[in-house]
Amino acid sequence: MAAIDLNSDLGESYGAWRMGDDKAMLAVVSSANVACGFHAGDPAGIYRTVKAAAENGVVIGAHVSYPDRVGFGRRDLDATPEELIADVIYQIGALKGIAAAAGTAVRYVKPHGALYNRIAYDARQGQAVIDGIRAVDPSLVLMGLANAPILDLARRAGLAVVAEAFADRAYTPKGELVSRREAGSVLHDAKVIADRMVGLAQSGTLEAIDGSTIRVEAQSICVHGDSPGAVAIAEEIRRRFTAEGIAIRSFAG
Amino acid sequence: MAAIDLNSDLGESYGAWRMGDDKAMLAVVSSANVACGFHAGDPAGIYRTVKAAAENGVVIGAHVSYPDRVGFGRRDLDATPEELIADVIYQIGALKGIAAAAGTAVRYVKPHGALYNRIAYDARQGQAVIDGIRAVDPSLVLMGLANAPILDLARRAGLAVVAEAFADRAYTPKGELVSRREAGSVLHDAKVIADRMVGLAQSGTLEAIDGSTIRVEAQSICVHGDSPGAVAIAEEIRRRFTAEGIAIRSFAG
Amino acid sequence: MAAIDLNSDLGESYGAWRMGDDKAMLAVVSSANVACGFHAGDPAGIYRTVKAAAENGVVIGAHVSYPDRVGFGRRDLDATPEELIADVIYQIGALKGIAAAAGTAVRYVKPHGALYNRIAYDARQGQAVIDGIRAVDPSLVLMGLANAPILDLARRAGLAVVAEAFADRAYTPKGELVSRREAGSVLHDAKVIADRMVGLAQSGTLEAIDGSTIRVEAQSICVHGDSPGAVAIAEEIRRRFTAEGIAIRSFAG
Amino acid sequence: MAAIDLNSDLGESYGAWRMGDDKAMLAVVSSANVACGFHAGDPAGIYRTVKAAAENGVVIGAHVSYPDRVGFGRRDLDATPEELIADVIYQIGALKGIAAAAGTAVRYVKPHGALYNRIAYDARQGQAVIDGIRAVDPSLVLMGLANAPILDLARRAGLAVVAEAFADRAYTPKGELVSRREAGSVLHDAKVIADRMVGLAQSGTLEAIDGSTIRVEAQSICVHGDSPGAVAIAEEIRRRFTAEGIAIRSFAG
Repeated sequence: MAAIDLNSDLGESYGAWRMGDDKAMLAVVSSANVACGFHAGDPAGIYRTVKAAAENGVVIGAHVSYPDRVGFGRRDLDATPEELIADVIYQIGALKGIAAAAGTAVRYVKPHGALYNRIAYDARQGQAVIDGIRAVDPSLVLMGLANAPILDLARRAGLAVVAEAFADRAYTPKGELVSRREAGSVLHDAKVIADRMVGLAQSGTLEAIDGSTIRVEAQSICVHGDSPGAVAIAEEIRRRFTAEGIAIRSFAG
Repeated sequence: MAAIDLNSDLGESYGAWRMGDDKAMLAVVSSANVACGFHAGDPAGIYRTVKAAAENGVVIGAHVSYPDRVGFGRRDLDATPEELIADVIYQIGALKGIAAAAGTAVRYVKPHGALYNRIAYDARQGQAVIDGIRAVDPSLVLMGLANAPILDLARRAGLAVVAEAFADRAYTPKGELVSRREAGSVLHDAKVIADRMVGLAQSGTLEAIDGSTIRVEAQSICVHGDSPGAVAIAEEIRRRFTAEGIAIRSFAG
Repeated sequence: MAAIDLNSDLGESYGAWRMGDDKAMLAVVSSANVACGFHAGDPAGIYRTVKAAAENGVVIGAHVSYPDRVGFGRRDLDATPEELIADVIYQIGALKGIAAAAGTAVRYVKPHGALYNRIAYDARQGQAVIDGIRAVDPSLVLMGLANAPILDLARRAGLAVVAEAFADRAYTPKGELVSRREAGSVLHDAKVIADRMVGLAQSGTLEAIDGSTIRVEAQSICVHGDSPGAVAIAEEIRRRFTAEGIAIRSFAG
Repeated sequence: MAAIDLNSDLGESYGAWRMGDDKAMLAVVSSANVACGFHAGDPAGIYRTVKAAAENGVVIGAHVSYPDRVGFGRRDLDATPEELIADVIYQIGALKGIAAAAGTAVRYVKPHGALYNRIAYDARQGQAVIDGIRAVDPSLVLMGLANAPILDLARRAGLAVVAEAFADRAYTPKGELVSRREAGSVLHDAKVIADRMVGLAQSGTLEAIDGSTIRVEAQSICVHGDSPGAVAIAEEIRRRFTAEGIAIRSFAG
């Protein structure tokens, strides 16, 4: 039976501010990328999310970020490797502590936002993230962008990796994400998106923005939960996967 | 042979700002209370301090604090138990991650500043700190103020505790610290201080501010390293202990 | 014709996090307590709110706070007078800069959350807030809790003051707020609340929680906008005031 | 008589952390670039520095930065123009508030660190800084890197500008700073530096790193005070200027 992981960014509330519908998403996904406090997440809120994930049997990953709360980790930052290694270790450690307190464990690391995009192709910062992960716990899996160089970089360093596709994003004929600045880069129709993801899970292919068929080797699909519309798309994907007999299952099973 | 632990607050630099002489103090103490990022310490600096402590064979404790960097954790804050429990777990976890990356481990927890002073006597916040420690790792030792209620509170909760005396502070006849607002509360003469600490290590007694002799059961002595004068006092204590045949040794041996 | 000010806390979003419905509230109130970055508000968001307030002819006040973003300024903090004076000056200055850029001006200061509650009765921190306001701009009005000592303290220091009532809060027979920990302290029925506020605006009296009638001299009424229900209450008060011929008008006219 | 401005970065302590010797530098310089809280400076510390500058008759500038305290504003950050404009307004406003409280005024703006270097050549972020300055107070002078495009960009927008040279830096034959990564980029000999600055003040020329003579039109010279050696260099420059009859005088007279 086909199986794939569904992941989503959770724990992104901060103090009095709410973001996303963690409860709804924990009923949809198999993996939760949990904020670690640098772009989002305060300790009490992270703890609540991790406990809820554990109760739902959802696997936990560390959603590490540049230290940029006001910019939500979405702004490129020229951190040095020394800074980045330590920032990664610190954040993973903090989430491991919270996971231990909640009776669960951190199984993977997915960098967030600008850091995610940068290390997909930037070997210097990418190596720093890899070095940080390996230093704190070499059994952690790195989740990275499908078809991007970061995956091989991590494999060569001895890390297990998981390639990720984005449910609501268009792809270029080369298998890269279409930039958000271009028209058609983000998909909004739940049925179209679910169709694409069923195809991805069954055949490892997607239709690129030019109509060509491309290979996207992905063991995980990222879905969003930051708006009612986003939750509805995620739920539709789950519904279709269930109907098609595609298991939704963490790679860290 | 008599033996006692010497501890000091380390890792309190922050980014471009330096504080204390960690290198000098790591040659003096047996235990390092390492800042966890809430009152002081950035990840890269904490990592450097933890690596240096490991190289010096100095045992590492988590110096957890209220989240108040601008106030250096010295201001009382009405955190709720839920916030405090999670803050404690997060900070211990972060330091555990860094310690793991440095090939060492966190062995104890010493709350910092205003939090330390408050939980010495405030059972509500004290219980929250205890609950946080137990949730993340019940094998951690809590270091607390000698003769204060927090020690029994922690013991009753099943935590191992270490009572701490302050090398440069005067004590009341009841065995409590003389408030910093009162004259004579802080001692400055290295020889006098070293004499007192030798007495404490050998007989468990100190001369109180009124001249009476009091019992202070302490397994650890706190020394400071935030000024050249403070380092010199710490070095004098070490020199005298060595001369008197008192071993300087962590309780977590 | 009777007239009273309606004020609300605005600009409390932070980066990617939204809070409250500033647009809806700017159509209701005559005065906006704008966050200054210490408990909420990032510069870009504050700027948007201040520009919108200016476009709506709403008067702007500085909603100064303890520096506690993760706690949303709701936790009591033992700041020293020196710290508090400078924190107040800094926040007012920052908001003045933004107001100048938006072609408007800051006319009053309303401390936020824990600071508001503390200085209502604590003369030491209250005097520090007053000193900060006077140092940066003695023409600013201090908005404070009706019937609380802070108002006289400020008057004696030469500041103009405005007393404030809370639309959705119950009062003790002595004219103080019923603690939020007690049953019945917060009112939820829009019609009941609007009735009470009409009475307050027309006669300066309210029914206390024990049924007695008390005097509450208030020149401003605080309404909330942090939930759809809160906005609806504020709109109902405005509707009733309009129907009763009570002008909604800033004290800073 | 020849005259030139000497400026230095001040107010860069933060809470319990000290940086630089503001007292010594205020006896040397005519202009103080005062940290505004984003890379350094807490309100109480900024206030102390501004009061001391006022007492010394030193002119005050706003040393605005990216919001990156842990990186001390030294890391390039992809802030949007909207964010940058508001960040600049907020910081200038805050410092204006503190200056008003200290009985003085902000006269110029000198961006700090990575922001300074980036806007020297990046017109998009440069324009945002200019727009922010003009929005809050168009009478403020922008201090920027001599020979860099930012100066013309600001002039065209209607801002007064001051070009700045760096006392301890080597220059390329084109009049640009030699990158810190290259050997010989930073000068350390106080006498050599003072000789160069006398030449600059008298003739507007410097010897470039290749031995050629270049023009550097600068109305201000930046000196550092973050180490005893740096203070000594600044003092030597002042001594030599005095001996040569070169007045040290702010451009903002």
